[in-house]
Amino acid sequence: MAQIQMALDSLDFDATMALAEAVAPYVDILEIGTPCIKYNGIKLVKALTAAHPTKTILVDLKTMDAGGYESTPFFEAGGKITTVLGAADMSTIQGVIDAAKANNAEAQVDLIGVEDKAAVAKEAAGNGAQIIGVHTGLDAQAAGQTPFADLALIAGLGLDVKISVAGGINKDTIQSTVQAGAAIVVVGAAIYGADSPADSAKELRALVDAA
Amino acid sequence: MAQIQMALDSLDFDATMALAEAVAPYVDILEIGTPCIKYNGIKLVKALTAAHPTKTILVDLKTMDAGGYESTPFFEAGGKITTVLGAADMSTIQGVIDAAKANNAEAQVDLIGVEDKAAVAKEAAGNGAQIIGVHTGLDAQAAGQTPFADLALIAGLGLDVKISVAGGINKDTIQSTVQAGAAIVVVGAAIYGADSPADSAKELRALVDAA
Repeated sequence: MAQIQMALDSLDFDATMALAEAVAPYVDILEIGTPCIKYNGIKLVKALTAAHPTKTILVDLKTMDAGGYESTPFFEAGGKITTVLGAADMSTIQGVIDAAKANNAEAQVDLIGVEDKAAVAKEAAGNGAQIIGVHTGLDAQAAGQTPFADLALIAGLGLDVKISVAGGINKDTIQSTVQAGAAIVVVGAAIYGADSPADSAKELRALVDAA
Repeated sequence: MAQIQMALDSLDFDATMALAEAVAPYVDILEIGTPCIKYNGIKLVKALTAAHPTKTILVDLKTMDAGGYESTPFFEAGGKITTVLGAADMSTIQGVIDAAKANNAEAQVDLIGVEDKAAVAKEAAGNGAQIIGVHTGLDAQAAGQTPFADLALIAGLGLDVKISVAGGINKDTIQSTVQAGAAIVVVGAAIYGADSPADSAKELRALVDAA
């Protein structure tokens, strides 16, 4: 059964907490987006963890250096997954993997901006990363790109990891994304841009569960 | 005259403010390190700006996506420089450059982890980036790497940009770094790891001014 990850992309603390509350019944993972964590800091991790003890909190740190040093406090504050950039040095990726394991948590290696995605995915998986993120960023989405070819590439490697897919997924693409091998589908604008985020999340939950 | 940038790498809010206070007389740029901004959030930018109105505040966001969206609030809060990863999509880099210009501020493109550093430096400079960062990360430093060969490469391009150099610079290397073309030298551990950070900063200031 695939999981749904809700990307909380607002900068505002209260709006983020309110959106999480609205969609929590329908999603598995609450993601604090990169701009949001930089804006709000670790107190948001603590607040979300306290408000949603049964949900998995992902902190989208996109770590590029100082892997263990940067990620450890976020695991200790309640984050169960943090992200590290596949573009980072493998020693940095390893630092996040080790910090995650020390905290009974998981590291996601985000392939955004990586040239040889298959090579990085293989090496990171071999080094213990639990999740590989196939990710078309917001700026690349604005230029018309999608994550689906990269998903086929990474799923085809048959690695012993969960594949997370992010990049403009909506109700028209979410089922085919799951069928193509995504264990985690990340949804942002399709929920927070809807008239009713809760209704949109409920609809996407039903689509994922039927996929 | 080269500038000295102090990297504030602690996670603790009060310790960061205290270190900034101790070294401010001897440095030009106060840098909020990447782990520090993720941990503390934008309130630290506002506090440092208020406490040091005559210093340049750099927020080491290491932006990888959503360039304008992520960087704009930090410029508005008083940051005069933010960093964007050279590994990011050029549309993301452009977003930070545009946001910087709209706020009478500067964008630094950080070459950490970039394979073809000369190509990215040339394109970013051509697109309006004011600072190119030659940067050996903390994890790579731990593996024995230094930024000096990359500095020679980038300085040799003769681009119309300021070159910033970071990566374990200390009193033994700071003058040769300036002489090799660095307009900004970033110092971290050589100051905060000293018995007296203020004395170390004063010594480095004298070395830079005599270089």
